[in-house]
Amino acid sequence: MLERIVEEVAPLRGAGVAADYIPALARVDPGRFGIALADLDGQVHGAGEWETAFSVQSISKVFTLALVLAGTDESLWRRVGREPSGNAFNSLTQLERERGIPRNPFINAGALIVTDELISQVGDASGDLLAFLRAESGNPDLRVDEEVAASEAAHADRNLAVTHFMASYGNVRNPVPEVLDQYVRQCSIEMSCRDLALAGRFLAAHGVRRDGTELVTNRQAKRINAIMLTCGTYDAAGEFAYRVGVPGKSGVGGGILAIVPGRCAVAVWSPGLDVRGNSVAGVAALDHFTTLTGWSIF
Amino acid sequence: MLERIVEEVAPLRGAGVAADYIPALARVDPGRFGIALADLDGQVHGAGEWETAFSVQSISKVFTLALVLAGTDESLWRRVGREPSGNAFNSLTQLERERGIPRNPFINAGALIVTDELISQVGDASGDLLAFLRAESGNPDLRVDEEVAASEAAHADRNLAVTHFMASYGNVRNPVPEVLDQYVRQCSIEMSCRDLALAGRFLAAHGVRRDGTELVTNRQAKRINAIMLTCGTYDAAGEFAYRVGVPGKSGVGGGILAIVPGRCAVAVWSPGLDVRGNSVAGVAALDHFTTLTGWSIF
Amino acid sequence: MLERIVEEVAPLRGAGVAADYIPALARVDPGRFGIALADLDGQVHGAGEWETAFSVQSISKVFTLALVLAGTDESLWRRVGREPSGNAFNSLTQLERERGIPRNPFINAGALIVTDELISQVGDASGDLLAFLRAESGNPDLRVDEEVAASEAAHADRNLAVTHFMASYGNVRNPVPEVLDQYVRQCSIEMSCRDLALAGRFLAAHGVRRDGTELVTNRQAKRINAIMLTCGTYDAAGEFAYRVGVPGKSGVGGGILAIVPGRCAVAVWSPGLDVRGNSVAGVAALDHFTTLTGWSIF
Amino acid sequence: MLERIVEEVAPLRGAGVAADYIPALARVDPGRFGIALADLDGQVHGAGEWETAFSVQSISKVFTLALVLAGTDESLWRRVGREPSGNAFNSLTQLERERGIPRNPFINAGALIVTDELISQVGDASGDLLAFLRAESGNPDLRVDEEVAASEAAHADRNLAVTHFMASYGNVRNPVPEVLDQYVRQCSIEMSCRDLALAGRFLAAHGVRRDGTELVTNRQAKRINAIMLTCGTYDAAGEFAYRVGVPGKSGVGGGILAIVPGRCAVAVWSPGLDVRGNSVAGVAALDHFTTLTGWSIF
Repeated sequence: MLERIVEEVAPLRGAGVAADYIPALARVDPGRFGIALADLDGQVHGAGEWETAFSVQSISKVFTLALVLAGTDESLWRRVGREPSGNAFNSLTQLERERGIPRNPFINAGALIVTDELISQVGDASGDLLAFLRAESGNPDLRVDEEVAASEAAHADRNLAVTHFMASYGNVRNPVPEVLDQYVRQCSIEMSCRDLALAGRFLAAHGVRRDGTELVTNRQAKRINAIMLTCGTYDAAGEFAYRVGVPGKSGVGGGILAIVPGRCAVAVWSPGLDVRGNSVAGVAALDHFTTLTGWSIF
Repeated sequence: MLERIVEEVAPLRGAGVAADYIPALARVDPGRFGIALADLDGQVHGAGEWETAFSVQSISKVFTLALVLAGTDESLWRRVGREPSGNAFNSLTQLERERGIPRNPFINAGALIVTDELISQVGDASGDLLAFLRAESGNPDLRVDEEVAASEAAHADRNLAVTHFMASYGNVRNPVPEVLDQYVRQCSIEMSCRDLALAGRFLAAHGVRRDGTELVTNRQAKRINAIMLTCGTYDAAGEFAYRVGVPGKSGVGGGILAIVPGRCAVAVWSPGLDVRGNSVAGVAALDHFTTLTGWSIF
Repeated sequence: MLERIVEEVAPLRGAGVAADYIPALARVDPGRFGIALADLDGQVHGAGEWETAFSVQSISKVFTLALVLAGTDESLWRRVGREPSGNAFNSLTQLERERGIPRNPFINAGALIVTDELISQVGDASGDLLAFLRAESGNPDLRVDEEVAASEAAHADRNLAVTHFMASYGNVRNPVPEVLDQYVRQCSIEMSCRDLALAGRFLAAHGVRRDGTELVTNRQAKRINAIMLTCGTYDAAGEFAYRVGVPGKSGVGGGILAIVPGRCAVAVWSPGLDVRGNSVAGVAALDHFTTLTGWSIF
Repeated sequence: MLERIVEEVAPLRGAGVAADYIPALARVDPGRFGIALADLDGQVHGAGEWETAFSVQSISKVFTLALVLAGTDESLWRRVGREPSGNAFNSLTQLERERGIPRNPFINAGALIVTDELISQVGDASGDLLAFLRAESGNPDLRVDEEVAASEAAHADRNLAVTHFMASYGNVRNPVPEVLDQYVRQCSIEMSCRDLALAGRFLAAHGVRRDGTELVTNRQAKRINAIMLTCGTYDAAGEFAYRVGVPGKSGVGGGILAIVPGRCAVAVWSPGLDVRGNSVAGVAALDHFTTLTGWSIF
């Protein structure tokens, strides 16, 4: 079935444009495509360039959120909301109206709070994240792409503004430069569709990792999935919910992680983005997938 | 099972407050409660005060949306978006930023556009809605509560502001007073949980009515369900998605209509509202229901 | 001196565009020009088309404000502020943030409150205004241009939205349609530069009318002049203060009334507007005037 | 006359509260008061504590603006506007709507741009400012209060947010930390009423310094005065224009510099602030002053 999806989305490969605000991402060929599926048993299958590493970018927010919830039993929710934002992903207007409390953990402001919380818990947040991703994917070679990280750090004014702004409301615990550094590093991790599907599998498995231990409770896994469905794809969550019908989180590197609760995790990658920052061929592939399987929730 | 839910939510009955901006609604005892379930075969079961009529208010927006989509094959979507709003349900700021195009059909602004479109299609929008609801529920006595309608018409400044504002951007087709009148009438329809579950059943049945005819296509039914999940409960859609895990639409009369696609429609009613305008005991009852059945989608 | 100004602004006549949102105004030749000066003794001098009547539009807001202050001894200030708005003249966002209290009496929202207050005081607000303007100008033929009024009433959605919105906060006393009707009529009054300079003379005379009676106190006249300087020319008040250096109020009919406290009132008219809605040749003429006389306050 | 003003405002001394967001300022006794007047000849007179140094804070914005205009002949105006803002002095919402271009040079965002421009011109902006202030006041001991500077640098998150935000739109030339450092240093300069009146005298003298050289042109001096009148006292510019009737710039240290064009500069100081951040006794003293002299412009 995955091979069939590769064929069906072939006409869409190259549609859209690669993210251009980070030079290191802008150079990627928008026509590339890969897809992988990890089932509850930890088996993984793939098609296309499913073993090629790409920059996960905002998809990392799903994992830092899970790691923080694993550590704090939801004290995080005093510092960040859980509702859709209805604005461009980096708007400061909404943050001002709500006095420094971001709407949800997947807009940049919210993800910066999550990273700040993870720093408070473990110190080296991106290192902790990398250790988790290596263990779950079984790939000890996962690493931060230092060129991408440097490129993002050099274009971080908007995120620095957001973080200092929240700090002015007392909603940041650690020094702003440290929060930014860890945030940039987490976004710059490189993973393949294979790695990503395996790493996200625990969200399909009610919070249980491949080794059988519980990372988060069933309730927390439901929580994360619900936030993915309502807030995971920037300002296109309603459209994604309709077309794909399962929780998903996209990144401007062109990747999308989708979760079918109780069944599997699916990762797709194609760098051509639509105007809202989601992979054109990636969304189409997931649309085909849920149509073929009948696993849409609507 | 419905009886068990009635028992379990008993401690919550009376929590919250009845909507107070409409005098006719404010007088209702917040401790009342009813629940009904309609399956795909059109069988309906209930518990508590499931045959008592209450004011459907915003739940009517689901039905006008379906009627418009049945008539226009989605031309509506040039006039209203499909994304969560992230704002109070009657904010004008967002409407100004997006130049008169409401974010989705379930905030007041969007529902007023849907009503305007339905007037263009059929003339007497609330009459058309009533005919549909009577047919689907098998209850020929469904009617507009004229006292509630008069009360709402007398407190309509905010909705009048919203409608004139959209008209100033050219996004209203019919005279503003007529749109308001029809909108107020549709919100003031009285239905019981029984009526409501039967009327919403077609959304669980992929768009097919009790008599076997298709009201909307399967794709359109999916669309409506997706909008219910992401935008159906004011500024608590993320929380509702997590707790209940199926599409739902609430009204300030205390009712909620929830859809389990492919299985059934469930209607609950209890007038005590939380700060975001959703029924306290109603949400709790649906939470119990999806937990007991395992039908949460996450 | 007035003749010299007519010559100096001749190259600018026809620059800009006549207001196009009201058909009756859009037909006026943008190249027309007139100027008149009324001194404290009530002598009036003019040049160009200084006796041609034009639509005063927003300049009427100065007079309704004075009439209300004459009647209420400033109780108005609980319903409207006195600070510059920093926004387009018809923005609803600011009004929402400040919960239905307009920033100042010269943005549309504020002027609608002033009209509402005048209706409460005298009933027929535009009739009362007309009586005052006829008396002060000595021109018994001043009248409402009914074609302009009808045209504005037919394009009033934005102002209706603003008024209903304020009404939803409890800040409107009279029925919205009546407020709008009176507002539209006051804006549609036709006056010449001659009439306007004579009618505005009392603001240069510390509140004293031509017949020696006091319309407003010296403090109130100062107040009105200060509001004209900081808020009188839409989103160009800072620029007008710098270039012209005296209080002024413009209208989209192309007129501007300027006050030199203790000396005179000057009225100019030329229908070509800049992007901010102020008369191009009119502002230039006032710039010349204050430069020639040395009466700029800076 | 100055002694008489000291007596008249005596009952107001201690009204209001000292700025509390900077610990070093919060410790000052709010009851202190001084006033000084410098005439065109450079003669200076004073009363009360007119030779006691205090923190000039935002009053420094007048001088950096003049220094930049002296150097660039108004190229600055592509990066910052000249209109009142109508918002709290540190709002990011307006800055977002206008894409990183602040409304005027006296809100924090605008002043940060002015400092950035001055750094580009002279390198050590606060050093250049100090040199100018020493020369104009004839006081070689003027200096930065390092304790205040350190205190402000430690509470700079809001200003850092604003500056990074403008940088994200490409409207900042120098490194953000350097701009902030220079901005904090300029605000932390200590001056007495005597020093301040002498330093501001050139704005009353059409741009000409005490030594007879021209700092800015007459047009530029008019420009600065006009911006002071419309934007110099945070969100109370309309009220200040009415009560005082001449251009003024306040600071949260309790100082106000007022300019009577062609006549004199007046500086007052009293640390008790009203809710909008302006000195209670200071505004009252200037109100008395312009009433006694008849120099109000309205």
